[in-house]
Amino acid sequence: MMFTYCMKRRLVLLGRDVSFLHDLLTVPRIYSRGTSHEAADPASLLVQLCRRQHYIAPGETHAASLKRGRGCGYGPLGLDLQKNVLEQWWTSVVRSRAQVFGISTPHCSTTSTAAWVLQGDDVRNSLSQRDLPGTQLAEGLRQVLQRGEFFRSGLLQGALDRYVPSLELTSGKLPFGLAQTGLCFQPESASSDTVGCSSEVTEACLVWFCSPRTSSQWLDYWTRQRLQWWRKFALGPSDFSVHDVSGEELKQGASRGVEVLYHFPWGTEVLETLWNLGDTDLLNTHQHSKAKLQCRDGRKVVVPHVVSVTSNMDRAVLAYLSNSLQDVQNVDSKQRLHQRKVLKLHPVLTPVKVALDVGRGSTSELRQVCEGLLQEFLDVGISAWPGYMDTTQTSMERQHARYDEMGVLFAVTISESTLKNGLLQVRSRDTTIRETMHISEIKQFFLKYISAAGNI
Amino acid sequence: MMFTYCMKRRLVLLGRDVSFLHDLLTVPRIYSRGTSHEAADPASLLVQLCRRQHYIAPGETHAASLKRGRGCGYGPLGLDLQKNVLEQWWTSVVRSRAQVFGISTPHCSTTSTAAWVLQGDDVRNSLSQRDLPGTQLAEGLRQVLQRGEFFRSGLLQGALDRYVPSLELTSGKLPFGLAQTGLCFQPESASSDTVGCSSEVTEACLVWFCSPRTSSQWLDYWTRQRLQWWRKFALGPSDFSVHDVSGEELKQGASRGVEVLYHFPWGTEVLETLWNLGDTDLLNTHQHSKAKLQCRDGRKVVVPHVVSVTSNMDRAVLAYLSNSLQDVQNVDSKQRLHQRKVLKLHPVLTPVKVALDVGRGSTSELRQVCEGLLQEFLDVGISAWPGYMDTTQTSMERQHARYDEMGVLFAVTISESTLKNGLLQVRSRDTTIRETMHISEIKQFFLKYISAAGNI
Repeated sequence: MMFTYCMKRRLVLLGRDVSFLHDLLTVPRIYSRGTSHEAADPASLLVQLCRRQHYIAPGETHAASLKRGRGCGYGPLGLDLQKNVLEQWWTSVVRSRAQVFGISTPHCSTTSTAAWVLQGDDVRNSLSQRDLPGTQLAEGLRQVLQRGEFFRSGLLQGALDRYVPSLELTSGKLPFGLAQTGLCFQPESASSDTVGCSSEVTEACLVWFCSPRTSSQWLDYWTRQRLQWWRKFALGPSDFSVHDVSGEELKQGASRGVEVLYHFPWGTEVLETLWNLGDTDLLNTHQHSKAKLQCRDGRKVVVPHVVSVTSNMDRAVLAYLSNSLQDVQNVDSKQRLHQRKVLKLHPVLTPVKVALDVGRGSTSELRQVCEGLLQEFLDVGISAWPGYMDTTQTSMERQHARYDEMGVLFAVTISESTLKNGLLQVRSRDTTIRETMHISEIKQFFLKYISAAGNI
Repeated sequence: MMFTYCMKRRLVLLGRDVSFLHDLLTVPRIYSRGTSHEAADPASLLVQLCRRQHYIAPGETHAASLKRGRGCGYGPLGLDLQKNVLEQWWTSVVRSRAQVFGISTPHCSTTSTAAWVLQGDDVRNSLSQRDLPGTQLAEGLRQVLQRGEFFRSGLLQGALDRYVPSLELTSGKLPFGLAQTGLCFQPESASSDTVGCSSEVTEACLVWFCSPRTSSQWLDYWTRQRLQWWRKFALGPSDFSVHDVSGEELKQGASRGVEVLYHFPWGTEVLETLWNLGDTDLLNTHQHSKAKLQCRDGRKVVVPHVVSVTSNMDRAVLAYLSNSLQDVQNVDSKQRLHQRKVLKLHPVLTPVKVALDVGRGSTSELRQVCEGLLQEFLDVGISAWPGYMDTTQTSMERQHARYDEMGVLFAVTISESTLKNGLLQVRSRDTTIRETMHISEIKQFFLKYISAAGNI
């Protein structure tokens, strides 16, 4: 079913694909901001669009971080996209399952190693004593370091720590899972690199405790589930794939591993890693006290095996942005060729569902209608863009081209006739078709459209 | 309307308040886990309940952190409560307003001061050279520090940094706002304190840019809005109050300040701070280049003033937990006095809306019905607790007492008769009344009940 939906989304596009005209006609590009240099580099094209349309914050560092799979500054649209991706992850992994419990564990601990967190004053005080001999100074600093903690580099350890108290939640029965999303620090290996902003990653992690005899099946189950999830929201599902980890790539203690990959135009990157970790990490975490760790698998009593699923939610944002960006060419009524970039993000993920603009007519009255309608949309959770507030004169064509780059699902135009008969124009991003609808119907229409897309 | 709702919630309780019996009768307490020592300390009573019912993670440090207004480890119920509070904040401040944009800014920067983040290897390498004279060692460490960054202590600066690119979002028109939620590090002032887990706070922050002539009115507007918001979800709204900040307490550069306070049984704490900051911070952030900062206030061109609203979302969790905890006493059919603790969290905030249990009858068949119903609830976003999976024999009385402590809104019991005629028992936390309903109706009943409570 998922597949047919994606196929349909593609067919709509194919039905309008007139790229063959490009070879036949040599008319100048009317709508194209890209230069020939940019066209050669899909990464910088994507980043420019994302920056222009408020997905990524301005500044080179943010874009560079995101490309390396690190989060940094998102603009309002990028933040909403990430929130939507995280929300879907949480719904799929935690909220819709009785056996998975969400937890939150401290960001700092004494057992990680990646990034040291120290109190500013402490460090400054120690360093001010620069006349001391090296050994004494080093000793002072060692004390500062002992008071500091490490920022976590992943979420697995936090969940393993919580295993014992969580047994109560399921009356000590297997299988069950603990899930968490949150900030981690993952500095790149080059020691010259600064730690901080450029090491920030938002991870989502499920730690699944199951009986040893079923752990391999559970790894298969979660791999299938997760790949299906990634592809559910994709315009081009085949860009997401899985890959067995073997040999030296295998994490220490893991018996099997699987990676979910995304094929970016500039190379393949890992979105998610699934490990069958056995019981080693769990035993190490709890000082090998098997009695404390045991729980019930039917009638047997066992120490569970651990299957972990860890996703990079910053790379997920970039993957969906890259996956949904399409070049669309079409010819207008005057036989001119138009090139547009359309961000065909899935209806559930796209940050702005509806934009509202005014057509011809008495501006102040039309704006009032817009304001009322906008509030109606916002009140039922349909994120809406107040295009009518933008007073710079642009043609509706240009406005729609901008909305296509933003990934806005529907553009609604309210005009003089709306005041007379309640009819307004609704333009779809994916079909580019304009329909006339009554103002009393559209809220329900959008709600149904979005929820239908989410249920497929 | 909000007030009548709260009044009604209280009256329901008053109607069942039989505390006067306590003085008349001297029967032993049947259901009471507290000792007399605990009863004297409302803080430790609350913390014990929260730990027992999976709001706070086990361990002294977590509870101590939360009491100091710092977040640390939440259990599954505490995490859901915080998620719900954050969700309501975001809906009220960002999602329902066309002029407020959500952003996300880096957690680390070079301009904060609270907590230094350093790469672990760098520090270790420097410290290993302990034979060097003090000056050289200090120099080496200074270089390490220069490569490190600071973890942010608040969200204001990040929003001020983003002011200029955000002007595009509103075509340079005032007023508009930038909002963000996220992790900050706020070490306590005592320098002996370790930084790390015990300094973590989740803040929510709105930075509102408005014309200088209206900034004072906007501060009043937001104070009203915010107090209303805090009280909307309260069982005892009068425990939330506002307080004008004056004299030496005023933040540097601020012309006015207001605090939203919560009266905990152990003292009053600040939940939220609102400042009228003028233009000082904004000018400082952008090197006093007024031309870059100007935007339109009607026909005039001005440098905006800043009103900031900053909430501590960990203290918010504790405030709502404390506010909703009630001692309820009632007498059963055998004239025995029962004391119960009920966590009367607002229907929108409470982590578990429905618990499902089996009554008398064929267990395996009943469990199947439960599983089906549970999945139906989860699919529409009603968080449900699989009580039927707990095979330890407890009376329904005890089970309900546990659900009351968890704050579960409704307890559904499925029994033999459900299989025959589809009828099941629904018990309400707030009224303790048991109703019989048809299995086909309850999903809609719960959805309507929760959404009605949210719309008041």
